[in-house]
Amino acid sequence: MIGGGLGAFIGDAHRRASRICNDYELLGGVFDVDYEKSKEFARQEGIDLNRCYASIDDLIIGELALPEEDRIQAVSIVTPNFLHYSFAKKLIENRFHVICEKPMTTSVEEAETLRDILDDCKVSFCLTHTYTGYPMVRQMKELISEGVLGDIQRVDAQYYQGWINSIIHERDSRITGVWRLEPEYVGISSCMGDIGVHAFNLIEYTTGMEIKSLLADLNNVTKTNKLDLDGTVLLRFKDNIRGVIRSSQVAAGEENNLRIAVYGSKASLKWAQEDPNYLYLLSDDGPTKIYKPANTYNSKLAEESHVMPAGHPEGIYEALANIYKGMAKSIRGEDYDEGEFPNVFDGVRGMKFIETVVQSNADGNVWKEI
Amino acid sequence: MIGGGLGAFIGDAHRRASRICNDYELLGGVFDVDYEKSKEFARQEGIDLNRCYASIDDLIIGELALPEEDRIQAVSIVTPNFLHYSFAKKLIENRFHVICEKPMTTSVEEAETLRDILDDCKVSFCLTHTYTGYPMVRQMKELISEGVLGDIQRVDAQYYQGWINSIIHERDSRITGVWRLEPEYVGISSCMGDIGVHAFNLIEYTTGMEIKSLLADLNNVTKTNKLDLDGTVLLRFKDNIRGVIRSSQVAAGEENNLRIAVYGSKASLKWAQEDPNYLYLLSDDGPTKIYKPANTYNSKLAEESHVMPAGHPEGIYEALANIYKGMAKSIRGEDYDEGEFPNVFDGVRGMKFIETVVQSNADGNVWKEI
Amino acid sequence: MIGGGLGAFIGDAHRRASRICNDYELLGGVFDVDYEKSKEFARQEGIDLNRCYASIDDLIIGELALPEEDRIQAVSIVTPNFLHYSFAKKLIENRFHVICEKPMTTSVEEAETLRDILDDCKVSFCLTHTYTGYPMVRQMKELISEGVLGDIQRVDAQYYQGWINSIIHERDSRITGVWRLEPEYVGISSCMGDIGVHAFNLIEYTTGMEIKSLLADLNNVTKTNKLDLDGTVLLRFKDNIRGVIRSSQVAAGEENNLRIAVYGSKASLKWAQEDPNYLYLLSDDGPTKIYKPANTYNSKLAEESHVMPAGHPEGIYEALANIYKGMAKSIRGEDYDEGEFPNVFDGVRGMKFIETVVQSNADGNVWKEI
Amino acid sequence: MIGGGLGAFIGDAHRRASRICNDYELLGGVFDVDYEKSKEFARQEGIDLNRCYASIDDLIIGELALPEEDRIQAVSIVTPNFLHYSFAKKLIENRFHVICEKPMTTSVEEAETLRDILDDCKVSFCLTHTYTGYPMVRQMKELISEGVLGDIQRVDAQYYQGWINSIIHERDSRITGVWRLEPEYVGISSCMGDIGVHAFNLIEYTTGMEIKSLLADLNNVTKTNKLDLDGTVLLRFKDNIRGVIRSSQVAAGEENNLRIAVYGSKASLKWAQEDPNYLYLLSDDGPTKIYKPANTYNSKLAEESHVMPAGHPEGIYEALANIYKGMAKSIRGEDYDEGEFPNVFDGVRGMKFIETVVQSNADGNVWKEI
Repeated sequence: MIGGGLGAFIGDAHRRASRICNDYELLGGVFDVDYEKSKEFARQEGIDLNRCYASIDDLIIGELALPEEDRIQAVSIVTPNFLHYSFAKKLIENRFHVICEKPMTTSVEEAETLRDILDDCKVSFCLTHTYTGYPMVRQMKELISEGVLGDIQRVDAQYYQGWINSIIHERDSRITGVWRLEPEYVGISSCMGDIGVHAFNLIEYTTGMEIKSLLADLNNVTKTNKLDLDGTVLLRFKDNIRGVIRSSQVAAGEENNLRIAVYGSKASLKWAQEDPNYLYLLSDDGPTKIYKPANTYNSKLAEESHVMPAGHPEGIYEALANIYKGMAKSIRGEDYDEGEFPNVFDGVRGMKFIETVVQSNADGNVWKEI
Repeated sequence: MIGGGLGAFIGDAHRRASRICNDYELLGGVFDVDYEKSKEFARQEGIDLNRCYASIDDLIIGELALPEEDRIQAVSIVTPNFLHYSFAKKLIENRFHVICEKPMTTSVEEAETLRDILDDCKVSFCLTHTYTGYPMVRQMKELISEGVLGDIQRVDAQYYQGWINSIIHERDSRITGVWRLEPEYVGISSCMGDIGVHAFNLIEYTTGMEIKSLLADLNNVTKTNKLDLDGTVLLRFKDNIRGVIRSSQVAAGEENNLRIAVYGSKASLKWAQEDPNYLYLLSDDGPTKIYKPANTYNSKLAEESHVMPAGHPEGIYEALANIYKGMAKSIRGEDYDEGEFPNVFDGVRGMKFIETVVQSNADGNVWKEI
Repeated sequence: MIGGGLGAFIGDAHRRASRICNDYELLGGVFDVDYEKSKEFARQEGIDLNRCYASIDDLIIGELALPEEDRIQAVSIVTPNFLHYSFAKKLIENRFHVICEKPMTTSVEEAETLRDILDDCKVSFCLTHTYTGYPMVRQMKELISEGVLGDIQRVDAQYYQGWINSIIHERDSRITGVWRLEPEYVGISSCMGDIGVHAFNLIEYTTGMEIKSLLADLNNVTKTNKLDLDGTVLLRFKDNIRGVIRSSQVAAGEENNLRIAVYGSKASLKWAQEDPNYLYLLSDDGPTKIYKPANTYNSKLAEESHVMPAGHPEGIYEALANIYKGMAKSIRGEDYDEGEFPNVFDGVRGMKFIETVVQSNADGNVWKEI
Repeated sequence: MIGGGLGAFIGDAHRRASRICNDYELLGGVFDVDYEKSKEFARQEGIDLNRCYASIDDLIIGELALPEEDRIQAVSIVTPNFLHYSFAKKLIENRFHVICEKPMTTSVEEAETLRDILDDCKVSFCLTHTYTGYPMVRQMKELISEGVLGDIQRVDAQYYQGWINSIIHERDSRITGVWRLEPEYVGISSCMGDIGVHAFNLIEYTTGMEIKSLLADLNNVTKTNKLDLDGTVLLRFKDNIRGVIRSSQVAAGEENNLRIAVYGSKASLKWAQEDPNYLYLLSDDGPTKIYKPANTYNSKLAEESHVMPAGHPEGIYEALANIYKGMAKSIRGEDYDEGEFPNVFDGVRGMKFIETVVQSNADGNVWKEI
């Protein structure tokens, strides 16, 4: 693991998820840019200090020096965004499997480079768009691919959070500590890069359609703030299909309100992340149906993504564990469904989305092809 | 009443609402373009056939011939959209109070003419944006005007229906009967003119802010369809405040899903029409609160807009009755709160919204000032 | 109308409902025990003061003196409980149709007398168990009678309110004004007589089954309080079917939380009064379905009980109006469905329930046949 | 671990929970009564086959032969109910810490024996009433202990499941395989012993009050079925406080619908297991409040029971992990809150509940002191 040391919630989430799915063991890593803190973390976690490295280069050298069967096979990158690319690149080139937090890189160019390198290096690569690990998101994908909705006519996704709101308004002194607001750490976008891209990914994941062009209206909210904290993106797909992504990091009181609705010619599907075990199928000619996990009416992939009996809620860690499990199958060379984990192509799409959104906004809210 | 004869649900809704609020009596009208049907309706309702007129001109002549104390005082116009303007104009000019369905006219020009005539004629004019009659919408308006949200940062409204979807896809033979899809009856817009404008009105009503400019992306969905059935509108208010209206008449399975969320620097409010007795106040620093009618914590206007004890749901008819009640106060010259019924200025705003939306879309999705 | 004068919300509800259904006109009544207040109310409502009577006897004499076609046909009794019986009896014996608030009487004996008199007098009698007027309650009844649930196995109903809680704890000075807490006004039970009996009625209405025996545990909550404010009742039906009614008037913060769940061998149905337009059908082998009014999948009776298009919520007034409409059909001698309004037999059942509950509790929580 | 081998979902849940909390490592056990299957499971999990024992006696001998620092410290018992007691007893007597599934034993006598042995042996004992590990259940306990509700007046808990329904009605051939329906495996009660006892535990956990006496009405539903599958239990606490537990295993379509409502003189709290991250605080004099995890307004214990940022749902595995974490603190001799894990006293209470319920029912639904 790279990053994810003391106090980092995303790193902890990855470790928990890997333990839940039980196909991984945490052997070593570079847990902090400060080597002492990294070692402190390693001690706390009971990790062999010889494998707590000072840098990614040391890690690569150290691990490659070990017999192949003892080596770290897969590395999770859970650093701030700007480090994803260079670390992933080195690891892939040295034939480590990589699990990378999103956004995959800070530019399309980097993303495409990773894609090309992977094509050469033949390792597995997983991008943790965690929400695609939820059973009902997978069920949604399956129902759509089976044609239950008829022809899709409209897609509407939302990602509203409020935690940055309290920072920018009430606790300004803390704002410097929030690396997510700083371009040098996160890249060219905050709201769209950090959360809007999840909505984008969820749309392409569930519908199986590519967004062809978009028109974005972004808002930095305050004058001192350097990046977008809020925005709306109009979407166009093939065949005159339209959609919209709405996203905000300053939606006071919203926690993690990611939602998606896909409207078809025959029926529609709606899902919301804060109540992940409910999937609503609306139709013109019958009562709305509520799909829930652990029921035999679900698809195979959805059912395999939930372990407990019906009515025992699983959550975000289990969603991430499902993605880790798919990646483990890939690493072991087993069969897996393409819906089991997002990969480098999803990463390239995500970076294209972010760049296109920023460009559309900068050019005065005009249509741009992705 | 003009229009609203046999089989017209909106006319029936107005009559029920007027009976609920109990300040009106149905004395006569022109209930159908077909005079025989109009009389059949009058007989059925027990209305004096002498006051069942063949045309609006007959109505005006007939009523003005009566002693003032026996005359119809107020006339409800519940015809298809294209008739609103000319009927309202004649009635106002002849000093009848007018209650008019939305959209008020089919153009801004007509709307402004009505506004100017009203300025001369000193009668009361009510535009039935029914949703502003719900107690929790009124509570929302009051909480915002009290500053509970701090500075507004974002507004997000939605109006999704699905009933036209089944018509355009499955029962094409019926489509000709749907006057709402025909420009000669509804004007220049279907989706935005029929329902999007409600979302617009709800935003301006609850926030007390005017939308300054907008960028619209409309979709006729099928090639044969002449008007928009679906669209998204980006909004700008003063002070860099942004918003969005999303609206569709082809959202399969949606019934009457009008929603609004207003996000402020301190807190946020969310309301949905299908569950009208719940208003959610979200904040950064405390649990979400659910406001419900008939509780002493509500504002005076909200409390007066619900009669039954708490937990006894009132609905859409009572919302419309609240608007009729406000109009009755105005007709009688009593004091009333400006939030009690929408008026001609709201009608002008609505028409400007519709025209601007259509213009923005026609010009290639560009910003237009309202 | 008898009772329901100034400040009486139930009387107002009946008047609104009768106006909504539009088959009634308020011609006269005895609106208050204080004749001056009664006249004040009549003036306010625009009622002919000659038909604002000082007593029920005067009303009967006065109306019978009129030509039959001018007479009041039907009388609504909305007084405190202890007056229902004698007033209903006199009215029926004088051949007025009667609409009576629940509970119908204060004893089974009285209830059975009313039933027997009605058998002789051939007028229509309606008991306003309002909740049976909701479209989704009617849909529930129909689905059960069609056998959708298979064999019923368990019934669970709840009626929780909190408004008395604040009175008994925080505003003791007001308690004397609450006639619902006084045996001389309400009879032998408060919680079960006022609200528990609605849950009872809802069970028998929706399931079509009679409760055979019960075991009740009632609680007066405070030592000074004379009647039950809280209780639980175990139920037995035929064929070893069990059930429970839970009811409280001191459930702090609850508004009008009446719910029912009926569990069958194949599927189950759940409905809650505060969200009356949602009916949930659960089954072992498919997703939960949500029934809503104004959809063609509903039964005829359910559909006729909702006027507006789907997604436009109707509420408690419309539920009561549906009952008034059924009663109007009966008065006019038209066909009607037995589910359209509760009658004297329901009233007898309700009184038996209340008496049996009180007896079971008094005897130490033992089983009693109804 | 004892039990929990191939195909056992509860054993898997315990292993996942222990991995999530990360204070445990699975070293060995007796995973199946069939030694070959046990070894197959051990191989699959990567467990040292030398520590995959044929019996609990072998496990005790084998482990005690190891140096103390290498020994298994704590053993999880996840077998069918009838084995809990003897295994727990042996393990405790040999100074292993024990984590035991509920119900703790099959009789009060056994439960009290365990309690007494623990008093001598000074090891830690945890009973996995998993639902007490949810953050909002813990928040509920804290709010009640702080007096937010005033004096408790009524408690209403429910545990409805439907999975046995489909077995007894539609797939009778499978019924013999369901050990939960057989007295020799589960003891004297199915519905109350398996799920009703969770509702009981949740009541005593959250309110901090003991149930003093109860009156139970149980139902085996079919004639061939040997144990209760459905029932209602009336409850009495100190100070005239009443309550009820409703529970069924044949509630068609219900998944795992455990709920609790506690009504006080000032306010009330409601929680439901299928939406575990929502806690509702109702009061007479203000809007209902919704508490959610990961917010600073929560108590320390509730906050420490949720790791992810607000709006990222954690679920049942994390609830169980929280209990494992509390137990780990106890094993290590660290400070912990008494609410962090249920212990042997909760187990004794649970067994008393089950025995008293069965006795009350057998004696004809009469009050019994617990």
